[in-house]
Amino acid sequence: MTQFKKGDRVLISCISSCGKCEYCRRGMYSHCTTGGWILGNTIDGTQAEYVRIPHADTSLYPIPDGTDEDALVMLSDILPTGFECGVLNGKVQPGASVAIVGAGPVGLAALLTAQFYSPAELIVIDLDENRLEAAKRFGATKTVKATGQEAKQQLLQLTENKGVDTAIEAVGIPATFELCQEIVAAGGIIANIGVHGVKADLHLEKLWSHNIAITTRLVDTVTTPMLLKTVRSGKIDPKKLITHRFKLDAILDAYDTFSKAADTQALKVIIEAA
Amino acid sequence: MTQFKKGDRVLISCISSCGKCEYCRRGMYSHCTTGGWILGNTIDGTQAEYVRIPHADTSLYPIPDGTDEDALVMLSDILPTGFECGVLNGKVQPGASVAIVGAGPVGLAALLTAQFYSPAELIVIDLDENRLEAAKRFGATKTVKATGQEAKQQLLQLTENKGVDTAIEAVGIPATFELCQEIVAAGGIIANIGVHGVKADLHLEKLWSHNIAITTRLVDTVTTPMLLKTVRSGKIDPKKLITHRFKLDAILDAYDTFSKAADTQALKVIIEAA
Amino acid sequence: MTQFKKGDRVLISCISSCGKCEYCRRGMYSHCTTGGWILGNTIDGTQAEYVRIPHADTSLYPIPDGTDEDALVMLSDILPTGFECGVLNGKVQPGASVAIVGAGPVGLAALLTAQFYSPAELIVIDLDENRLEAAKRFGATKTVKATGQEAKQQLLQLTENKGVDTAIEAVGIPATFELCQEIVAAGGIIANIGVHGVKADLHLEKLWSHNIAITTRLVDTVTTPMLLKTVRSGKIDPKKLITHRFKLDAILDAYDTFSKAADTQALKVIIEAA
Amino acid sequence: MTQFKKGDRVLISCISSCGKCEYCRRGMYSHCTTGGWILGNTIDGTQAEYVRIPHADTSLYPIPDGTDEDALVMLSDILPTGFECGVLNGKVQPGASVAIVGAGPVGLAALLTAQFYSPAELIVIDLDENRLEAAKRFGATKTVKATGQEAKQQLLQLTENKGVDTAIEAVGIPATFELCQEIVAAGGIIANIGVHGVKADLHLEKLWSHNIAITTRLVDTVTTPMLLKTVRSGKIDPKKLITHRFKLDAILDAYDTFSKAADTQALKVIIEAA
Ligand SMILES: [Zn+2]
Ligand SMILES: [Zn+2]
Ligand SMILES: [Zn+2]
Ligand SMILES: [Zn+2]
Repeated sequence: MTQFKKGDRVLISCISSCGKCEYCRRGMYSHCTTGGWILGNTIDGTQAEYVRIPHADTSLYPIPDGTDEDALVMLSDILPTGFECGVLNGKVQPGASVAIVGAGPVGLAALLTAQFYSPAELIVIDLDENRLEAAKRFGATKTVKATGQEAKQQLLQLTENKGVDTAIEAVGIPATFELCQEIVAAGGIIANIGVHGVKADLHLEKLWSHNIAITTRLVDTVTTPMLLKTVRSGKIDPKKLITHRFKLDAILDAYDTFSKAADTQALKVIIEAA
Repeated sequence: MTQFKKGDRVLISCISSCGKCEYCRRGMYSHCTTGGWILGNTIDGTQAEYVRIPHADTSLYPIPDGTDEDALVMLSDILPTGFECGVLNGKVQPGASVAIVGAGPVGLAALLTAQFYSPAELIVIDLDENRLEAAKRFGATKTVKATGQEAKQQLLQLTENKGVDTAIEAVGIPATFELCQEIVAAGGIIANIGVHGVKADLHLEKLWSHNIAITTRLVDTVTTPMLLKTVRSGKIDPKKLITHRFKLDAILDAYDTFSKAADTQALKVIIEAA
Repeated sequence: MTQFKKGDRVLISCISSCGKCEYCRRGMYSHCTTGGWILGNTIDGTQAEYVRIPHADTSLYPIPDGTDEDALVMLSDILPTGFECGVLNGKVQPGASVAIVGAGPVGLAALLTAQFYSPAELIVIDLDENRLEAAKRFGATKTVKATGQEAKQQLLQLTENKGVDTAIEAVGIPATFELCQEIVAAGGIIANIGVHGVKADLHLEKLWSHNIAITTRLVDTVTTPMLLKTVRSGKIDPKKLITHRFKLDAILDAYDTFSKAADTQALKVIIEAA
Repeated sequence: MTQFKKGDRVLISCISSCGKCEYCRRGMYSHCTTGGWILGNTIDGTQAEYVRIPHADTSLYPIPDGTDEDALVMLSDILPTGFECGVLNGKVQPGASVAIVGAGPVGLAALLTAQFYSPAELIVIDLDENRLEAAKRFGATKTVKATGQEAKQQLLQLTENKGVDTAIEAVGIPATFELCQEIVAAGGIIANIGVHGVKADLHLEKLWSHNIAITTRLVDTVTTPMLLKTVRSGKIDPKKLITHRFKLDAILDAYDTFSKAADTQALKVIIEAA
C-alpha cells in the first residue's frame, strides 16, 4: 500500500477495486476480476475494530479534515447505491418527474441524491406511514401509500396520466417491478436498485413500442469522490439517514433494532468502536 | 404544405411527425400526438399510385438527384428500425461484440447498419440456413444455427465465455428475448427490435447485479437524414435487402412470395407502380 | 396557426423555429433556415401591444394556469441563454466547481440555473459590488471582486490551485475570455455566453495538452419546456432577476434605467402593457 | 508488478498511468499525478533493448498470440493520439463530413480511425503531394492541396458551402488552426491534435453564435484496449503507416530518414532490436 499510512482516517468503500483490470479501467468496479463486492459478502465485513481491506490503495478514500465522519459512513454503500443505480442510471433531469418505489434506506438514498438534479416531481411510494413521513422530510414532493393497481392509479393521477420519466425500483420483488412498468412514461427509464431473488414478468407486449429503458446495476462506488464533494459542500446531508447508534459490544441490539424497522423506525444504524 | 411541390421526388417515412408536439420536439416522432405510426396501421398504407401523407411537410424527405430510389425504399422503415432500435439503442462501438438474434429483414438491417461503428464481432443467430448465408454476405463475422441452450453455448464459446456487449433481439418471442438475457455480457445492452405479442420472463434474480440495460423502441425515423447521407456516400447499400420485384397489379403474388419466405428466400419485395 | 387560438396566454421565445428545417430537427433552432434570432434583430421586437410572431406554432409556449407571468418573461431569452450556453454547454455536475465571469443579467441567469446540478463551488467574478451582492443572494458560494491576474490568483486560491471544472464567460471581451483560459482546470470546459465584437487570443501553446473544451452557442431555446417545468415546480424563481417595472408609455425611462445599471442596480426591467 | 512476468510480450503505452490517482480514475491518464507523458519526455524513451516502464502494471498491455507486433507499435502513441484527440473529441458520426488539416503521421492516424464511424466525407488538406496520395490510399474521400483562403474556398465548394461537422487540426500552427475556424460548420467541432508553440487567434466575433466546440487533449491512451480489438479483428491495419525499418544500430539513419520525410516519404519508422 502506497497511498495511505497508519493513522490516516479513511472511508471504506463496500466495493473493492484493483484499479488494473478491464472492468476497473471502465469504471465498473463492481465487476473487478479480483475485487468487487467482497466485504460482507465473500469475506467478513467491517464491523470490527481492525479490518484488512483488499486492494486498499484503490478502495479507500482519504477523509478531509473537518468532515463529519458519521455522514461519511453513508458513503460506503447506501448513498452511492441509490445514486448510481437509481439516479444516474435513471438519468434524472431538471424539471423531470421521478417515482421511487420503496422508501427503505436505499430508496431514501435515491431520494436524497435525485435532488442533485432538481426534478420537478419526486414521488415516493410505500405502505409504511413512518417511512413516507421520512420521505416527505427528505424532499419527496408527494407520497403514495398504496400498492398495485391502486398505486398505479394514484401515480397516474399525479402525472396527468403520463407516468414518470424515471421509475426507481427500490424493493426487489416482482410486484414492485411490475408497478414500475405501469407507471413509466413513454420515453422513460426504469432504474432497478432492488436485489431480486426471483424472475419478474416483463410486459414486452406493451412496452416494445414505448421507447423505454430498464437498467440494472451492482453499485460501482465510482462516484464516491463526487459524493464526497457534495457532502463537504453541504449539497446533501446523509446523516439524515442515521436513526440509531450502538457501541460495538451492543451490536446484537443494533441488529435487533434494524430487523424490527417497522416498529423502531430504524433507517441506518451506526456502530461505534468501543 | 410548404416544403414540397408537385413532381418532387420524395422518400415517405413510415412514421408521421407533426414537428410541433412535445414528442416531435424531443425527436420521439413515434409518439407524435397527432402522428406516429399511422400509415399501414391506423390508416391504409402506401401501396397505391397516389397517397395522402399526414404531416407531409415533416414526414417526407427530398430525394437528391442521382440517388438510387430502390435503395431508398429501404429507408422508409426497415433500415431506420434496425438502426435506431438495434444499433443506436444498443450503443454498438468500435471493437465491441454484437449478437443479432434473428436474421429476418429487420435483423439484417441491424446487421448492415451496425457496421457503421466497426464492431469486432457481429454474430448472427437464426435457424434458417438461407438467411444465415445472407447474413454472411452482409457482413456477419460468424453465424450460429441453433436456438435456446445450444445457441447460448455456441455464443459463449465464440466470446471467451463473456457474452456480447450488445444483444439485438430481432424476432419478438419470449424464447429469443430469454436467449438475449443469457448471452449479454456484464455491462452490456439488450436492444429489443422485435414486436412482442406476449410478456416475457426477465431474470432479475441474475441480472440485477450485471449492470445491463434493456431498451425498447418504436422506430422514430429521426435518423433518416443521416441514413440518406450514408446511402449517398456509399457507406451502405440497402439494395442488398431487395430480393424480389412485382408490378402493382401483381401485388398478390408479392404478398404470396413474402409469406413463403423460407421457400422463396424473400427478404424485401419492391412493388413498382404500373 | 393551429396550436393556439385568440386569447391564449403564451410565452414568446426570442428564437423563432420553423420545426421543419434540418437545424430545427436537430434542436438547433438558433440556426433555423427561415427563423432563428429574428425578433429584435432582423425585425422589430416585442415591446408592443400586438406583435406578429414568425413560425408562431413552434415558437410560442402555452402558459399553464396559475403560473406567474412575470417570472416567465425571463424564460423568453435570458434564462435559456444562461442555461443552454453556460450551464448545459459547461456540463455542470454535482460536486463540481464553477466560475462565472461577469455578474450581469446573463451571468446571473447562469448562476441560477447552474444550481439545478448542485455544483460544490459557484464562484462569481465581477468588479461591481452591487452585482456581486446580488450574486451572493442568488446562490454564489464565493465572489471575487477583481480582474486579470488578481482575479486569477484569487480564483486559484479558492480552488486549491486546480482551477474550475467549468468557466462560464458572460461578458464578451478578450480580457474575460483570457481569464477563463487561466482558471479552467485540466479536463475542464470554457462555456462562452458573451457576445464578442473582436477576436481573442487562444493560448494553445499551453492549452493544447490540457484536455479542455471551449464552446460557443447562440441560444436555441430548446430547453424552454424544461425550464417551464422548473419554474412551475418552484425549483427556480426567475423573478429574482426583475428589479424595475415600467408602463409601456414610460419605456424611455425604462431604457434609461437599464442603461445606467451601475447606478440604478437594474438587472431586468419589465415593461407592462398600458 | 503483479500483472506481467518475464517473457510476456507487451505493448508499451506512451502514457504512464498509476491507476490510483484522481485523473487515472477519471480515464484522464495524461494527467496522472505520478505518470502521464513521461517516456521520451521527462525520462528517456524506449529505443533500447531493455527499458524500465513506470507504473508498468497499468501502462502495459498483453499482446494476444498471433497478433502482428509491428502493427501494434502504432498503438503505443500515434493511433490513440489520432483517435482520441481527433476522432473521439471530434465526435465523428456516420454520414458526417470531416476535414483533417495536415496529412502527417498523426493526421493519417486520425484518417484511419475516423473510418470506424463511417463518415460520408473525409477530406484531407495538405501541401505535400506524396502525403495526399497516401491519404487517398488510406481512405480519404477527397484531398485538397492548398492553404489559407484557397484551402477554405475549395473546402467550402466540396461541402455545399456549409463547412464540415468535424475539423481536425493535425499540424500545430496558428494558420492551420485559423483554417479550421473557417471551415467548421455551425454546430460543428474543431478537434485539436497539433502541439502548438505559440498562441492563435480565436475569432469569437464570428464564432460566438455558431454553436461550435473546440477541444484540446494530450492523448490518454485510454482507448488502447478498444484499438487492440479493432486491430485483431481486422477493422484497421495500422501497418499502413510504416514506411521504413532500421536495426537499432542504424538508428541515426532512421532519424535522418524521418527528418527528411518530404524526400523519403517516411511516415513511421520501425526500429528493430538487433
Ligand atoms: Zn479490478
Ligand atoms: Zn408531433
Ligand atoms: Zn427551422
Ligand atoms: Zn494516475
